[in-house]
Amino acid sequence: MPDSLDALNGRLLKFARERDWEQFQSPKNLAMALAGEAGELLEHFQWLTEQQSASLGPEKTRAVAHELADILSYLIRLAERLDVDLIAATEEKIAINEQRYPVDRVRGDARRAAEYER
Amino acid sequence: MPDSLDALNGRLLKFARERDWEQFQSPKNLAMALAGEAGELLEHFQWLTEQQSASLGPEKTRAVAHELADILSYLIRLAERLDVDLIAATEEKIAINEQRYPVDRVRGDARRAAEYER
Amino acid sequence: MPDSLDALNGRLLKFARERDWEQFQSPKNLAMALAGEAGELLEHFQWLTEQQSASLGPEKTRAVAHELADILSYLIRLAERLDVDLIAATEEKIAINEQRYPVDRVRGDARRAAEYER
Amino acid sequence: MPDSLDALNGRLLKFARERDWEQFQSPKNLAMALAGEAGELLEHFQWLTEQQSASLGPEKTRAVAHELADILSYLIRLAERLDVDLIAATEEKIAINEQRYPVDRVRGDARRAAEYER
Repeated sequence: MPDSLDALNGRLLKFARERDWEQFQSPKNLAMALAGEAGELLEHFQWLTEQQSASLGPEKTRAVAHELADILSYLIRLAERLDVDLIAATEEKIAINEQRYPVDRVRGDARRAAEYER
Repeated sequence: MPDSLDALNGRLLKFARERDWEQFQSPKNLAMALAGEAGELLEHFQWLTEQQSASLGPEKTRAVAHELADILSYLIRLAERLDVDLIAATEEKIAINEQRYPVDRVRGDARRAAEYER
Repeated sequence: MPDSLDALNGRLLKFARERDWEQFQSPKNLAMALAGEAGELLEHFQWLTEQQSASLGPEKTRAVAHELADILSYLIRLAERLDVDLIAATEEKIAINEQRYPVDRVRGDARRAAEYER
Repeated sequence: MPDSLDALNGRLLKFARERDWEQFQSPKNLAMALAGEAGELLEHFQWLTEQQSASLGPEKTRAVAHELADILSYLIRLAERLDVDLIAATEEKIAINEQRYPVDRVRGDARRAAEYER
């Protein structure tokens, strides 16, 4: 995990250790915590139209930014616990998706993509 | 969004634009996609003990790494759509949590933390 | 848990016992499994407009119906494990919501409701 | 949707209509709301051991019961919007699972089941 994510992981690990919370951070529990935060993220958007979701205003944007931060924090902790390089894994996964969804077959068709995903 | 996340965003944006998928990537939809991936992450861990979740083996670790990659990808896209600096937002949120969970009051007590969160 | 839910719980319990899977069905694990299925539900809808989501066609409706079934199954199992009467709890919660969201204050305003929820 | 679920749907629909909220209850939005509640459910369990999750105490059980109620409420609304019979769909899905996971092949092995699910 390079650069800025690495620095965040150091700070998150220190935070957990000072509170003796590392004992609770099994991959299973971190996955739950991440999904719980993803649920909170949904709650900000669930009754908005797509258009409204693109212009939240400063106060709501800040609240959503903090949800994104919580998700990134658990993602970083989980990657560290599993010894996964988040950036490398994402580059690898994007390369897979570039193969899986050829431009000429899926262009403009998100539903087609959803079927491919199955 | 600095450095490696910035590079990933560029690649993800190019991926979406080549497929004419940017039109589907409203913040609302990206939040749903992120939460859907978080659900897939859970499925890897739901029947494992905490201990088993900490030693997955190479094949399962790679599968989980790809789920983490999917989550990070949607997180990066969402941050870009909302004009949020992911790293700065995470630093800010960690600082808030350092205040919110004072070491001497929550040490070793994850449930206490959960109550604070409410 | 009355009537039809009660019958489903009996069948689900028999299913789990015959496979010796009851040992995995701790409330924690069942909550994860339920949330995992909720993630699958999202994936059916994430790239659709709201309007498209209201007219899925028979094949997709059946796939979604099976996700709803999975969610209901875990919900029933979880309620049984925690000795919760699902129907009574839902009646109680609706009564609370009727108080919490007075008609004259929230009429036509879903965002207002979202703020109340915080 | 028979009996008690039917009665709950009537009450939930009246609740929504009195507040002019039915307009927000597209299947897409209801799926998000359901998944958001599933996220809240996770938060109750994420730092507990499996054993702790099985003996929550009365106060926490009541809080979890209300999360289950929220999930059931959105499930019922979603089924109604999609014209799905929840009970029949669940019976059908259980029958499929009985075929998919033959007792003699998956007995005592939850991980095997997870692989089948893929």
